[in-house]
Amino acid sequence: MRAVDLIEKKKNGLEHTKEEIYFLVENYMKGLIEDYQMSAWLMAVCFQGLTDNETAYLTKSFVDSGEVLDFSHIAKHIADKHSTGGVGDKVTLVLAPILASLGVYTAKLSGRGLGFTGGTVDKLESIPNFKCELSKEEFFNQIKNVHVAISSQSPNLTPADGKIYALRDVTATVDNKSLICASVVSKKIASGATSIVLDVKFGSGAFLKTKEEAKELADLMIKTGKILNKKIDVVISSMEQPLGHSIGNSLEVIESIEFLKGLYEEDLYEITLALAHKTLVNCGLVYDYSDTKKMVDEVIKNGKALGKFKEIIIAQGGNPDALNNYSLFDIGKNKMEIKALDSGYITKLDALDVAHSAKLLGAGRDKKSDKINFGAGIILKKKISNTVNKGDTIMELYYDDIEKNKLDEAIKIARNSFKISKIKVEKPELIF
Amino acid sequence: MRAVDLIEKKKNGLEHTKEEIYFLVENYMKGLIEDYQMSAWLMAVCFQGLTDNETAYLTKSFVDSGEVLDFSHIAKHIADKHSTGGVGDKVTLVLAPILASLGVYTAKLSGRGLGFTGGTVDKLESIPNFKCELSKEEFFNQIKNVHVAISSQSPNLTPADGKIYALRDVTATVDNKSLICASVVSKKIASGATSIVLDVKFGSGAFLKTKEEAKELADLMIKTGKILNKKIDVVISSMEQPLGHSIGNSLEVIESIEFLKGLYEEDLYEITLALAHKTLVNCGLVYDYSDTKKMVDEVIKNGKALGKFKEIIIAQGGNPDALNNYSLFDIGKNKMEIKALDSGYITKLDALDVAHSAKLLGAGRDKKSDKINFGAGIILKKKISNTVNKGDTIMELYYDDIEKNKLDEAIKIARNSFKISKIKVEKPELIF
Repeated sequence: MRAVDLIEKKKNGLEHTKEEIYFLVENYMKGLIEDYQMSAWLMAVCFQGLTDNETAYLTKSFVDSGEVLDFSHIAKHIADKHSTGGVGDKVTLVLAPILASLGVYTAKLSGRGLGFTGGTVDKLESIPNFKCELSKEEFFNQIKNVHVAISSQSPNLTPADGKIYALRDVTATVDNKSLICASVVSKKIASGATSIVLDVKFGSGAFLKTKEEAKELADLMIKTGKILNKKIDVVISSMEQPLGHSIGNSLEVIESIEFLKGLYEEDLYEITLALAHKTLVNCGLVYDYSDTKKMVDEVIKNGKALGKFKEIIIAQGGNPDALNNYSLFDIGKNKMEIKALDSGYITKLDALDVAHSAKLLGAGRDKKSDKINFGAGIILKKKISNTVNKGDTIMELYYDDIEKNKLDEAIKIARNSFKISKIKVEKPELIF
Repeated sequence: MRAVDLIEKKKNGLEHTKEEIYFLVENYMKGLIEDYQMSAWLMAVCFQGLTDNETAYLTKSFVDSGEVLDFSHIAKHIADKHSTGGVGDKVTLVLAPILASLGVYTAKLSGRGLGFTGGTVDKLESIPNFKCELSKEEFFNQIKNVHVAISSQSPNLTPADGKIYALRDVTATVDNKSLICASVVSKKIASGATSIVLDVKFGSGAFLKTKEEAKELADLMIKTGKILNKKIDVVISSMEQPLGHSIGNSLEVIESIEFLKGLYEEDLYEITLALAHKTLVNCGLVYDYSDTKKMVDEVIKNGKALGKFKEIIIAQGGNPDALNNYSLFDIGKNKMEIKALDSGYITKLDALDVAHSAKLLGAGRDKKSDKINFGAGIILKKKISNTVNKGDTIMELYYDDIEKNKLDEAIKIARNSFKISKIKVEKPELIF
């Protein structure tokens, strides 16, 4: 078998065998297949696609390239949740403590963010001294003791995905649904979860732009799970406007703390509940959605969820005083208010524009080596369907010392991110 | 400008500007764009194609990546000819001395062969002591003095094509007409020729399988020439059966010598004449095809063409005695005759099969580092439309000590390369 023949085969639209997929991935990891052959194959995949079976083999070959975590000696059910990424998506920060406070063991490996805003790991690191780089032993111990841990990705898990993702990133071969599926699902399988619930987002601020694309990816993920004997649940949700009201690392953690104190935006609550429900069903703890709602509301009301978040912070070296003293967070020293020039209803609040603006303020990074400004970001004072009066603040921009042209651009984009109209619109549908 | 964005652009089927093409090629040569990005771009090109303008820019960027030869101080017209490759194609060996003996300065840079049989350089090196690695000074001096020189490719010419071709070869991105066009035409332009005549072959033994593909490539080459202000002529010819009667390095040189002595196969004569005619017209030496025929026949008859070949051999260090004493060539010490099992007409003689068999006998190479056996090869005793009687020799296989399984396979393929039928067929059309 030669790599060049397999590239040619995919270029011609033919289906690979399991052996061929493993040959490509294993030899790529051994350095016997070069980056330039893998990238040519990936580009051919972008044009010709992979079949369901090829996708499953690729997923499994990623899993088999590294370690697979096994929590069976700790708990029968281990929950994991993953989002394909969106603007203001801090669901993990609230869902993990809620699930753990309900008795669900939750093992979450998360990435850092590349692109508009930070990832879950970046967000958590805005809590003073919070440590996300857990050793395997620390991760296992914490799950045993606290029932929940959130750690950065281990390079020992799915190293093939890591190496191939880095290559896809610089060769314009990211946006293929089979490659995305293999990347996401392999990580979840290797993480050892028994309940895998995925949030596939679409719309302006998501990687996938249409509901149809999201549905296709969701179907493929479920099928891949089936072929590999893993139950995978999927929620499809809209990312037209940001989730919740804050965008940026410290700001999103504060919003999450407020959520656990019972002060939340409807959309963030709705999606958290949907993901919690699927997990609780998988773990055999509930049947009805109404029970899930009751249980979640309960642990928010009685402070158990917030208490679990405190335990996580303490276990991971962070300062738990931050839960009640937000001044311990870095927050941009400058605040600029974007005000309504008109009265009416908010009919548009473009997630991508808001993210773009937040990134210019310092909330995101371009390269792995870039430093994120935890305190930079945006707080939304209005969301789609809200009424506004001329002069009302639509959003607040938080930032430190940044170049004037970047600030000007951030303001300009923020100003153009929303529309005010005289005609009332309904709150957009969130979950499909 | 970022490479990843240009890859994305081509992936989406958009047209590059001249600046973008130059950015890709120049930075690739500087090592600022990696192999894996170039190969992803090349694969995207295989799917989305390049426009005529993009193809011309790519061609020019290859030319501009290295030296461009200039013979204007030596002669007004400098002829060059190139074939896209075929089985038994020894046209350069006869055409170059014919043109030079007619007063046309001919500067030919040729490659070594990869694949089924040797390239022109390999063939010439089967002449004892013949040297193809000429320095630039030697090349220029010989053209000045002998009016013709045949040298191996200089790495100083179109280095971008060299680097990119090596990458295409291992990433299944060879078979795109724009990439082929840029590779061929850039080398010809950089070689300093004023008359460029290309032989685009199609059929079993050619890179292009159909006449339509050959026509498309030919049109693109002519257009590319137009955009870059270079007149390019193209002959489209069939490569269903091998050209002439010999395949293999020594054997093809001997056939070429015989040709110049007036003993030739009709097909080899026909195509040589067609290419000679276009060149002589370009150089303002003839108008009518009948004049070309008269002139070519004359220099064969009066021995001037053969004399010119002798001058080339002497100038390039070879032993001119080989022209009259073929025992100075390496010829396979074993000869195996493939005989007809039936009487009738030859209706098929598959060029690819014959080439494949010759390669197994030792006439070609897989890797650059493989050694060619100059003496290995095949002599055809019959060609399509010839009558045969049962027991007639169809072809002779020449080889030295080779592995038994390779020999068995070579014989098997040779036996299956032809068909004998009771129904007479016409001599196939050669030039279109």
